Amino acid sequence: MLGIGKTGWIEKDRPVCGPLDAICKPLALAPCTSDVHTVWEGALGDRHNLILGHEGVGEIVEVGSLVKDFKQGDKVLIPAITPDWNSVEAQAGFAQHSGGMLAGWKFSNIKDGLFSEFFHVNDADGNLALLPEGMDLATACMISDMIPTGVLGAEMANVQFGDKVCVIGIGPVGLGALSAVAIRGSSDIYAVGSRPNCVQVAKEYGATEIINYKNGDIVEQIMKLTDGNGVDRVIVAGGDNDTIGQAVRMVKPGGIVSNINYLGEGDSVKIPRVEWGVGMGHKAIIGGLMLGGRLRMEKYAALIKTGRMDPSKLVTHVLHGFDKIEDALMLMKDKPSDLIKPVVIL
Amino acid sequence: MLGIGKTGWIEKDRPVCGPLDAICKPLALAPCTSDVHTVWEGALGDRHNLILGHEGVGEIVEVGSLVKDFKQGDKVLIPAITPDWNSVEAQAGFAQHSGGMLAGWKFSNIKDGLFSEFFHVNDADGNLALLPEGMDLATACMISDMIPTGVLGAEMANVQFGDKVCVIGIGPVGLGALSAVAIRGSSDIYAVGSRPNCVQVAKEYGATEIINYKNGDIVEQIMKLTDGNGVDRVIVAGGDNDTIGQAVRMVKPGGIVSNINYLGEGDSVKIPRVEWGVGMGHKAIIGGLMLGGRLRMEKYAALIKTGRMDPSKLVTHVLHGFDKIEDALMLMKDKPSDLIKPVVIL
Amino acid sequence: MLGIGKTGWIEKDRPVCGPLDAICKPLALAPCTSDVHTVWEGALGDRHNLILGHEGVGEIVEVGSLVKDFKQGDKVLIPAITPDWNSVEAQAGFAQHSGGMLAGWKFSNIKDGLFSEFFHVNDADGNLALLPEGMDLATACMISDMIPTGVLGAEMANVQFGDKVCVIGIGPVGLGALSAVAIRGSSDIYAVGSRPNCVQVAKEYGATEIINYKNGDIVEQIMKLTDGNGVDRVIVAGGDNDTIGQAVRMVKPGGIVSNINYLGEGDSVKIPRVEWGVGMGHKAIIGGLMLGGRLRMEKYAALIKTGRMDPSKLVTHVLHGFDKIEDALMLMKDKPSDLIKPVVIL
Amino acid sequence: MLGIGKTGWIEKDRPVCGPLDAICKPLALAPCTSDVHTVWEGALGDRHNLILGHEGVGEIVEVGSLVKDFKQGDKVLIPAITPDWNSVEAQAGFAQHSGGMLAGWKFSNIKDGLFSEFFHVNDADGNLALLPEGMDLATACMISDMIPTGVLGAEMANVQFGDKVCVIGIGPVGLGALSAVAIRGSSDIYAVGSRPNCVQVAKEYGATEIINYKNGDIVEQIMKLTDGNGVDRVIVAGGDNDTIGQAVRMVKPGGIVSNINYLGEGDSVKIPRVEWGVGMGHKAIIGGLMLGGRLRMEKYAALIKTGRMDPSKLVTHVLHGFDKIEDALMLMKDKPSDLIKPVVIL
Repeated sequence: MLGIGKTGWIEKDRPVCGPLDAICKPLALAPCTSDVHTVWEGALGDRHNLILGHEGVGEIVEVGSLVKDFKQGDKVLIPAITPDWNSVEAQAGFAQHSGGMLAGWKFSNIKDGLFSEFFHVNDADGNLALLPEGMDLATACMISDMIPTGVLGAEMANVQFGDKVCVIGIGPVGLGALSAVAIRGSSDIYAVGSRPNCVQVAKEYGATEIINYKNGDIVEQIMKLTDGNGVDRVIVAGGDNDTIGQAVRMVKPGGIVSNINYLGEGDSVKIPRVEWGVGMGHKAIIGGLMLGGRLRMEKYAALIKTGRMDPSKLVTHVLHGFDKIEDALMLMKDKPSDLIKPVVIL
Repeated sequence: MLGIGKTGWIEKDRPVCGPLDAICKPLALAPCTSDVHTVWEGALGDRHNLILGHEGVGEIVEVGSLVKDFKQGDKVLIPAITPDWNSVEAQAGFAQHSGGMLAGWKFSNIKDGLFSEFFHVNDADGNLALLPEGMDLATACMISDMIPTGVLGAEMANVQFGDKVCVIGIGPVGLGALSAVAIRGSSDIYAVGSRPNCVQVAKEYGATEIINYKNGDIVEQIMKLTDGNGVDRVIVAGGDNDTIGQAVRMVKPGGIVSNINYLGEGDSVKIPRVEWGVGMGHKAIIGGLMLGGRLRMEKYAALIKTGRMDPSKLVTHVLHGFDKIEDALMLMKDKPSDLIKPVVIL
Repeated sequence: MLGIGKTGWIEKDRPVCGPLDAICKPLALAPCTSDVHTVWEGALGDRHNLILGHEGVGEIVEVGSLVKDFKQGDKVLIPAITPDWNSVEAQAGFAQHSGGMLAGWKFSNIKDGLFSEFFHVNDADGNLALLPEGMDLATACMISDMIPTGVLGAEMANVQFGDKVCVIGIGPVGLGALSAVAIRGSSDIYAVGSRPNCVQVAKEYGATEIINYKNGDIVEQIMKLTDGNGVDRVIVAGGDNDTIGQAVRMVKPGGIVSNINYLGEGDSVKIPRVEWGVGMGHKAIIGGLMLGGRLRMEKYAALIKTGRMDPSKLVTHVLHGFDKIEDALMLMKDKPSDLIKPVVIL
Repeated sequence: MLGIGKTGWIEKDRPVCGPLDAICKPLALAPCTSDVHTVWEGALGDRHNLILGHEGVGEIVEVGSLVKDFKQGDKVLIPAITPDWNSVEAQAGFAQHSGGMLAGWKFSNIKDGLFSEFFHVNDADGNLALLPEGMDLATACMISDMIPTGVLGAEMANVQFGDKVCVIGIGPVGLGALSAVAIRGSSDIYAVGSRPNCVQVAKEYGATEIINYKNGDIVEQIMKLTDGNGVDRVIVAGGDNDTIGQAVRMVKPGGIVSNINYLGEGDSVKIPRVEWGVGMGHKAIIGGLMLGGRLRMEKYAALIKTGRMDPSKLVTHVLHGFDKIEDALMLMKDKPSDLIKPVVIL
C-alpha cells in the first residue's frame, strides 16, 4: 500500500530482530477483506508505504537471544493478532487490545505486514506456533484469521447445547463462524447468504437452513422458521451497521448478538428501542477482535488435525509465486462469484 | 389509571385466588417512576382502568389450596416481577421474560397492581417472601424494585475486584445500583448526578467522585479522571437513549455497559461506530429487567439485615393512609428537589 | 422393587392427577444402571414396593385443570428428573436439587417410576415435551437420562475450543458424554474403555484415541499421549471413588474434573494432595445430577433432529411387550458383552 | 534458609538484570507462613542456601533495556507471584501456573526471595506496580500476598449477592478473604476461629457470626445457624486436609468450596461420598494460587486507596531494621497470641 487506493511494490530494509522476536520469510500468504478495506476505503485512516497482509505461514530466519522455543528453520503459523502478553490489557483477559483498543493487531495496521520477503514477529515464544506435520500450507493460512475470528464469534455468542443460531453473512469469516458454531452445541443453524459456493460450504459445515435476503426481510424469515420465538444467538459476520439492528430484532430475550464484522463506515449502529425491550430485554450485544497468540494457534491447529474443522473448503483459489500476491489481492477486491478465499504459495 | 394521563379511584371485584396463588392487602406501598411513565407517557400503550403499583409490602388474606409455605396473616415482601417459574424462559435463566419479553412483569402492566384494597399474587410459594422480623415497612418496600434493579445493574456489569465503575443517574434506581456496586468489589465509583440529596446519599453509599453534567461533557470528565483510559464498567440508570452512547465512549475495551434504565421514547439507541471499536472493541452492551421471585427477595432482605445495604436512606417522604397514595404518585411525577422516594404506610 | 434384591410385579392404584400434573401410560421404557443399584445394592437405602424406572416415552391419559400446553393423547418425552421449578433451589439455578440434594429426582426414588401401566408426572407444563414427529421411540428414550447426563458432563467440564478431553468410562452415560464433548469444541478425545461395541461407538462419536486400562495405568497412558502435560478436562462416567483421584492426576492446572458417575459405595473420594497442587493447583472438581425439565428435553430433541447427536447407536437391544421389562432389567444387571442399552417397546 | 530447619545469613552475588527485568532493594518486608513451612517443614522439598521472602515493597535500583514503564528510584509493590505472561498457561488464564503447576511462584521457591539486599524481578513491566503516593509501607506489604490470596478465595467462591459464606480460618489469609467476601455481595459471614485479636478484626471486616471449634463440631454449628440448609459458599483458609471434607458437608447443593490453604502434609484430601451427593450433589471444590502481576497489584492498591479494604488491621507488629527480619520470621513461626502479621521496615 502506497497510499489510499494505491498499491505497488516498495523496497524496505529487512526488519531488526529484538531479543524476544523472530524474523520470518513467508511460505504462503492470504489476502484478507481487511486489506481491501485498508487500501481502497482507507478504513484505518491514511497510511503510506505500509506493507499489507496478516494471514500466512512462515519460516523463521532469525530469532532473538531470549527466544526459547523456536529456532531458525522452523515453519510456523502466524496469527493476525500478536499481542503484548504482559500488558495490563492482556492480564485483564483482552490481549487483543494490548496497548489500546485493537492495538494487538499489528501486521498491516501499525507495522508492516506479511506481503514481504521478510517480516517481523514480536514475542516469538508467545505468538508463534509450529506448523503441524502434514498440514498443507493453504489450510494453515486459515488459522491466521478466518478460524480464530469465527471461533471468537461462537465464543462471544456463548452457544449452549441445543441453541438455535443465526449466522448472518457466509463469506470466509462467516463460514469460519458457522463451522465453529456447529461444534459448539447448536442445533438449528440458519445461515444468511446467497452466493452458491458459499451456500454449498455452509451446508457442508452444518447449516440446517439457508436464508436468502432476496426472499424478503431476513428477520421475518427467521421469525417464521422459529414460530415467532426468534433465535437464541446471532452471529453477525457480514452486512453493515443496520445488520446489528436486524440481529437484535431476531434474537430472543436472554439471547446474544455477537458481532465479528468490521464496520467500515457510518456514524453509528442503531439498536431498535422497542425490540431491545425498552432497554430491559436482556438482549446482549457484543463485538470483538480475535485473540491471536500461540495457545490459540495450537488449539485451532488441533481442531483441524482431529477433523473437527476443515478450513480447506474455504480455499477456492491457489496461486503460486511472489508475483501473484497482487493478483490474489485483486481477487479479494473484485470477488468473482466462485471465490471464497485465495491463497498464494511461495 | 383510567387512561393515558388520567388517574382516579375505581371499584373492582376482589381478585380470585387460584390454587397456587395468594390474595394480599397492602401494608405499605411505594409509587415508581414506571407508574408515571405508564400513566402520563403511555409508555406501555393505552391501558384502561388498570390499577397501578408494583412496590410494597402486604399481608396475606387468602392462599390457594396448593400453597405450602405461606398462610393467612403472614406479612410478606412483594417483588415487582412475579415470574412463571416453570416456563421455558425461566428454565433458561430468564424468568423475568416468562411468557414473552418483559412478561414476568405483571403488576400494573398485564394485571392490576398493588394500589388496591386487595391484590393477587401468582405462585405464592415461588414469589413471596416473609417480611423479616424487625424490618420497617418503608425499608421493606425498597426490596420490591429499587434494590433488585440496582443489584441487576451490578450483576450484568459483572464488576470485578478493583474495577472503576461509573453510575450514570443517581435517582432511587441509580442509588440502588451504586449501593450494590460498592459491595461488589469496585474501587472508584464515579456517580453522575446533581441533585443535592441524591449526591449526599451517593457519597454515603460509596461514590468516590461526583460527576455533574453541568460541568461539561461527562465522557470528557470521566476520561480526565481516568488518565484517558476510561472505566471498566458503566451502569446506566438515567438519561435517555443517547446516554448509552456516552457509556460506550467512556468504557474500556473489554468493559461492559449495563443498562437498567427504562427507555421511554425514541426509535433507536445509537452506538458510536468508531468508539465501539468499529464493531471489534469488546465493549459489551446489555440491558435487563430485574428478576423477582422468592429467592432474591430473601437474599436482598438478608443484605439489609446484615447491614450490607441500607435502602432506608432512599425513603425521603413517608405518608400515611390509603388516601395519600395519589399524593405519593404526584410526588413521583413532580419530583420536588428533596425527593428520592416516597412511601405510603397503610 | 419389593425390597433390596427382590423384584416382582405389584398391584397399585392408578396415581391421582393434581391440577398441574399429568398421568401417562408408557409407550417405551429403558432400564438404567441406577435401577440396578437401587434394587441389588440398596444404594438409595431400603425401599419397599417401589416401582422402578425413570427413562421412557409416554402418552398422556389425563391432565390437571391448570395444565396449558398438553392434552390427553399427546405423546411425550419424559425426563428422569422432574423438578419443582418454583423452589428456591430452582431459582438459584439448581432445579435438580429442588427440595433437597438430588430431590428433583423423583421417579423410582421418592415416588413410583415408569415401569407401570400408568405413571404420574408433576408439573406437566414444566417437565414434559412433545415427542417430535418422526422420532423413533427407542431413540427418544435416550433423551430421558443418557443424553442429558452426558451433556451435563460436557457442560460442567466447560470444554473450550481445542481442548483435549479424557472421558473415563464408555458405557451408555460415558458415550452420551463423549457425543456431547465432540460437539462442544474439543479436539482430542481420549476414551477410556475396553468393551468392543462401546469402543466402536466411541470412535463413531468422535473419540480420537482409545485408552484401555489393561495396557497399564491410565494416567500414565494419558500423560504419555499429551507429552506430560495432561488433559484440559476429564469427564468421569465410570469407575469407582478412586477414579476421581486418577482424573485429578491427569488434568492440567486450570483444568476441570467433571463427575457424572453415581458413586455407589465407600466412605470417601480421595484427592491426591500433591497432584492437586497442595491445594493450590486450580484443578476444579465438580459432580452433578442432570437437570431435566421441558426446555432441556426440547433442546436435546433438536440436537437429535438436526443430526448433531445420534443416540440410536446406544440402543443395542430392542424388546417388545410389557412382560419384557424384567428381561431388560436383567440385561442391564448382567451386562452381556454386546449390550450398551436395552429398550422395551410397548 | 540454609537447609531444612536451618536459617542464617549468607553472602550471594547481586543478581543479574535481564533486558525485561528489574533489580530492587527492599523497603519493607513481611514473612509469610509459607516461609515457615518451607524452612521448618521442608514442604517444598529440601532447598539449600535459598533466600526466603515473597512479601514486600521495594525500590528499583536497575532496570533492563526493554523495560518501558519503570525506572531507577521508583518505589514499587512486589507481588508474591511473578508469572511469565507470554506462556501458554497465562494465555489460558492461569498465569500463576506458567511453566508448570505453581511455577509462577518464583520468589523463595525456585529463585531467591526478598530477604536480601537486592532481589531480582522478572518482567518488570508485567509484574511491578508503583507504590501509590501516601500508602504506608506496612499496608503495602499486604498487597504482595495476603490481599490477593484473600481475593482469590472470594473469586473462586464466586459469591453472589446475598450469599451466606463460611470462612474457615481467620489468620492473615483468612482475614484477607473475609474482607474480600464482605465486599463481594455476601450477607451473613460465618468466621471460624478463636484467637481474640483475629476475632476482633474479623468482626470489623464484616463477620456476622464467629464460630469457635471449641464449642463443638463446626459443621453442626453452621447447620444450626442456617436452619439445616448449609451455606452457599465456603472459603477454606486454615485447618488441614480434613477441613475440606467439613466444608463439603456444610455447603449447599449448588455451592462452592474454595480452598486457599496450603496443604502441607498427608496423602490425600477426603471428600465424604454421601454428603458430596454420591458424586451428583453439585458441590464444586476448587483450590488455587493467587495470580500476581501488575494489573492485580494496581487493582488491590485501588481497593485500599478508596477505603474498600483496610489491610493495615492485619499488621500487629512493626519492626525496624534489616537485622530484625529473623525476629519477624520467628514471630511467624511461634505465633504469639497477639500476632496477626509482622512487618519489617528497612
